[in-house]
Amino acid sequence: MRRIDFMTVVGILAGIGLMGGALVMGGNPKLFWNVPSLMVTVGGSFAAVLINFSFQDVKNVFGTVKQAFTTDLMEPEELIELFGELARKARREGLLALEDDAGRLDDPFFSKGIQMMVDAMEPEMIREILETDMAYMARRHEIGQSIFKTWGNLAPSFGLLGTIIGLVQMLARLDKPETLGPSMALALITTFYGAIMAYMIFIPLAGKLSLRSEQEMMLHQMMLEGIISIQSGVNPRILEERLRSFLPAKPRQQQAGAGEIAREEATDRRI
Amino acid sequence: MRRIDFMTVVGILAGIGLMGGALVMGGNPKLFWNVPSLMVTVGGSFAAVLINFSFQDVKNVFGTVKQAFTTDLMEPEELIELFGELARKARREGLLALEDDAGRLDDPFFSKGIQMMVDAMEPEMIREILETDMAYMARRHEIGQSIFKTWGNLAPSFGLLGTIIGLVQMLARLDKPETLGPSMALALITTFYGAIMAYMIFIPLAGKLSLRSEQEMMLHQMMLEGIISIQSGVNPRILEERLRSFLPAKPRQQQAGAGEIAREEATDRRI
Amino acid sequence: MRRIDFMTVVGILAGIGLMGGALVMGGNPKLFWNVPSLMVTVGGSFAAVLINFSFQDVKNVFGTVKQAFTTDLMEPEELIELFGELARKARREGLLALEDDAGRLDDPFFSKGIQMMVDAMEPEMIREILETDMAYMARRHEIGQSIFKTWGNLAPSFGLLGTIIGLVQMLARLDKPETLGPSMALALITTFYGAIMAYMIFIPLAGKLSLRSEQEMMLHQMMLEGIISIQSGVNPRILEERLRSFLPAKPRQQQAGAGEIAREEATDRRI
Amino acid sequence: MRRIDFMTVVGILAGIGLMGGALVMGGNPKLFWNVPSLMVTVGGSFAAVLINFSFQDVKNVFGTVKQAFTTDLMEPEELIELFGELARKARREGLLALEDDAGRLDDPFFSKGIQMMVDAMEPEMIREILETDMAYMARRHEIGQSIFKTWGNLAPSFGLLGTIIGLVQMLARLDKPETLGPSMALALITTFYGAIMAYMIFIPLAGKLSLRSEQEMMLHQMMLEGIISIQSGVNPRILEERLRSFLPAKPRQQQAGAGEIAREEATDRRI
Amino acid sequence: MRRIDFMTVVGILAGIGLMGGALVMGGNPKLFWNVPSLMVTVGGSFAAVLINFSFQDVKNVFGTVKQAFTTDLMEPEELIELFGELARKARREGLLALEDDAGRLDDPFFSKGIQMMVDAMEPEMIREILETDMAYMARRHEIGQSIFKTWGNLAPSFGLLGTIIGLVQMLARLDKPETLGPSMALALITTFYGAIMAYMIFIPLAGKLSLRSEQEMMLHQMMLEGIISIQSGVNPRILEERLRSFLPAKPRQQQAGAGEIAREEATDRRI
Repeated sequence: MRRIDFMTVVGILAGIGLMGGALVMGGNPKLFWNVPSLMVTVGGSFAAVLINFSFQDVKNVFGTVKQAFTTDLMEPEELIELFGELARKARREGLLALEDDAGRLDDPFFSKGIQMMVDAMEPEMIREILETDMAYMARRHEIGQSIFKTWGNLAPSFGLLGTIIGLVQMLARLDKPETLGPSMALALITTFYGAIMAYMIFIPLAGKLSLRSEQEMMLHQMMLEGIISIQSGVNPRILEERLRSFLPAKPRQQQAGAGEIAREEATDRRI
Repeated sequence: MRRIDFMTVVGILAGIGLMGGALVMGGNPKLFWNVPSLMVTVGGSFAAVLINFSFQDVKNVFGTVKQAFTTDLMEPEELIELFGELARKARREGLLALEDDAGRLDDPFFSKGIQMMVDAMEPEMIREILETDMAYMARRHEIGQSIFKTWGNLAPSFGLLGTIIGLVQMLARLDKPETLGPSMALALITTFYGAIMAYMIFIPLAGKLSLRSEQEMMLHQMMLEGIISIQSGVNPRILEERLRSFLPAKPRQQQAGAGEIAREEATDRRI
Repeated sequence: MRRIDFMTVVGILAGIGLMGGALVMGGNPKLFWNVPSLMVTVGGSFAAVLINFSFQDVKNVFGTVKQAFTTDLMEPEELIELFGELARKARREGLLALEDDAGRLDDPFFSKGIQMMVDAMEPEMIREILETDMAYMARRHEIGQSIFKTWGNLAPSFGLLGTIIGLVQMLARLDKPETLGPSMALALITTFYGAIMAYMIFIPLAGKLSLRSEQEMMLHQMMLEGIISIQSGVNPRILEERLRSFLPAKPRQQQAGAGEIAREEATDRRI
Repeated sequence: MRRIDFMTVVGILAGIGLMGGALVMGGNPKLFWNVPSLMVTVGGSFAAVLINFSFQDVKNVFGTVKQAFTTDLMEPEELIELFGELARKARREGLLALEDDAGRLDDPFFSKGIQMMVDAMEPEMIREILETDMAYMARRHEIGQSIFKTWGNLAPSFGLLGTIIGLVQMLARLDKPETLGPSMALALITTFYGAIMAYMIFIPLAGKLSLRSEQEMMLHQMMLEGIISIQSGVNPRILEERLRSFLPAKPRQQQAGAGEIAREEATDRRI
Repeated sequence: MRRIDFMTVVGILAGIGLMGGALVMGGNPKLFWNVPSLMVTVGGSFAAVLINFSFQDVKNVFGTVKQAFTTDLMEPEELIELFGELARKARREGLLALEDDAGRLDDPFFSKGIQMMVDAMEPEMIREILETDMAYMARRHEIGQSIFKTWGNLAPSFGLLGTIIGLVQMLARLDKPETLGPSMALALITTFYGAIMAYMIFIPLAGKLSLRSEQEMMLHQMMLEGIISIQSGVNPRILEERLRSFLPAKPRQQQAGAGEIAREEATDRRI
């Protein structure tokens, strides 16, 4: 269930609107369109990105961009409910009964974890496998963000590089002073392109991807704790309390109070 | 009991006064008012912030700003007294007697911890739940600070971007040299806006929120240690000594000396 | 089996093409050729690199550069298959049968690990030796990257230094205003050289080497886990599952599902 | 026994002398005195510091500054001797005999530690309390340094802000070109103020405070190890050897060689 | 056996040659000599360094500089051979026979470690003492590097400060336009001095010292592992293998293969 991330779209439209407005208000917006400047700034920084990363990484970026505009992460509250349900089912019908639930989330991490639990793999091995999975997924996410961050950091440098190229060319033929202004304006446009690329596009996109990755890591951490807890037969309400500690306090209070849960558990253990 | 944080208010008033004074003394303060410049600097950087963060995060910021101007954190000394009292009550009347004290602080972390202790949840589970709670609360606080920091870092960049836009437009019509000065002044105003936004507002606010978060984390760490200690039946004065090690030495000396406390404990154990 | 890394080559050709195009389009590309400027920027920053590093490090750099243009790292999928095979062989024929497999990869880390396993060294000692090997290999890789990073950071500084030298010399003889433009153009060329060196060459190369090092570290981590697992007699399919957690989910699903593997293991253990 | 830190004083006097000399040599030092510029740079950055920190922190800074100019830290060598003496006394007369020594250092950390040891608190609890004390003291020191660092980082920004204000005001009335030079000179003075504040005062002071804090932390770490060692009845010379490993080798060689110490201990244990 | 570090010397000579060449080629190298500029840049930044560090630290710097130009670190290969020899001697003649070997290296860390081993101090205590020694030695090295880094970071700031001072003085007397060029050239010289100090001298020297410190730490880590291993009676060839894992693979292959070593050990243990 992939949903559009309105903030990214709104932010980009607002940015285009505001920048465009400022260009139009200042007179001739055509001033800011120059192909050689685009070549130096966009092309040059992209060439540097190609040197920095591998073919596989750069190919993956296009899929990654999509993630900044849409989201298919589930709500943590739903996950807590799901795990509460699974824990109750496991208590009633045994761990093997959960085999059919492995496919309930469209997340290979979840189904792998449930399967390993159902198949009675040892908890330390499950934890180790899932933590390795998370660590290297985080690392792959970082590479994606890193492409945008690197591009965002290089873009203003290539902008300045273009401005210097323009200045050198201009200064070498100072004999026609009436061309001085427009030449220098042209030289500055590369700096403008570099700044727009960096501050309006790549750096915020890298930030968004980083937040997404963190949310996904939190969901996976919750799944990991939930799976290990179900396997060790923890009380379903303790499990919910355990998972709810990942979330802010407010939604937690709307649920049954901690006291009730713990009391039930205490009863539970005395039996 | 939300109190106003005078320093934030005083700082902002002083900043406004000093900046305003400098503008007035320099002649015409109206020079520094320009709507398109505001659009590029404030609007552009806000658009980038929207791309970077999620809708939920940006919505939460408004509540977060309030925290920079007011504070409802309790004094650590009061917390130590409270825990001393609770520890003594627990020794006299048993852990169950603390059930009514869960609501004594307006802090869900505290009441959850007390409840779990009263309900005889295992100490390792209590510690794990409370530490997860702290870790993810710290993480959510960081996102709040991060919005201000990101905004503060982007603002001067958008200020420069606006200045470059202004310069390009100015340089393209150098034929009227008498407009050169005012046009360039106008171009520089975006840099002025960006710098004020960053150095006077967003970066100091992010710093304040970060300090607040650390204070809250310290209080929660003290609560965590206090709850675990009461559950394990530590001597109340040892508990106070344990909690006082979070604070600077001076207030500690005003209390009973460490020797006395330890001696009492020693007696205690021999019994 | 050393393969050419097309991205590095494509990136560098694209960069040269774009920069060259911008210079040619702007008129006289000869403007950008100046030997004293090269001396200050390239020579000066190289002299600083010589001070910063040892003779051995600088000598190794040339071999390191080759690594940015070619790659001989194996695919992780092949490694998983190899370890699955080795684990099955070890189960059938015993650990000693793996002695001849030590040379199957052209990687001293792998052969050393297999040998130590065959020779029944204790697992903790094997882990310690291989982890020390990885830690110090990572450290040596970092020094290589660090030479490029340091050079990349120093190049723009020496570019600016050259520009200042040029400006001082130009300002001292302002009496011939017609030389002003060309002199200043010349002064700016060092900044141009410094920026090209840093943003087009050294910083992206350092980034590429860093990614290569990480990939190699991941392969070695997989070998380490694989060797320890084979020695402890883990089920071959569990081992594959364990190693597959280093990789993204997709290739994993093309293999036998996790459930199957775990079930086989469960059977296995009951026997 | 508070001693003056000559380096801080010498550094500040040298800085004042050199800067003053440069101003006087350049002609009219009065050029560099301007009240509105001071308002923007010193006042503006202080207002931002007020927003960033709490009232308590800012109040504490004045005490902290004194620490940069004087020092009351003891020499580590003296501490080693003291602990050697205490360890010998503890062996001869028992731990209780150390009660009167708690006040021998003017350091509440030391006296608290000795008292807890004398009162036979458990070593793990003593270590936990003293480590919490050290961690939060380090944290409070960091806040003090952070005020200076923040101020030092903001000062050049406010300097530039003032320069931009001045430039805008100047550019708006370009009709009187004869005022151009002095106006721009005035505008640049804020940058001068900001740079002096940052690089001559706040950043070096923050550095000094950070080194002081580290020295104090080392002394406390030595006290902690010493107290735990005395409580566990370690041989006094082993204890001295243990504490001497915090210090550089030279003073260590002036003492009895390591061999002797260890030999004595070996004898000791055989008994 | 202190050897000259040719790279540092070659780097400095090359730097002087290249910079000097650029100055001479540009005409009058005397342009770049100005005493007040030296006062502001070199003197001012040194004054700030004095404020930042303690007298002891600054005094030690002179000894530290010598280390950047010479080296007395032994080759790791020699250390491995030495430890192989010591391990064999210990097996044949017992640990006490190593007493005379404590002085074989001119390194107090080595002799202290051997002595503690000979004197049968407990391995955990030896490890703790040697690790404390390494940690605080690393810390002292860091302070030395930090003086250079701090100086290197402050130098360009003081260079800019001097340029601003010069600009203010120049702008205040714009009535003589013919002095404009030379005055501004003079103002820029401080920036030149600051950049040379930072990028040619202090930052590379700090880098060299940091690499030296790392090499020394690696040697000490190898000594620590070697001493603990000999004390626990590890097979000498296993010990060599253990120590060789600190080094790159190539020199390792020139030695007896890992297999042989491990086989010998296996034999060893079966006996």
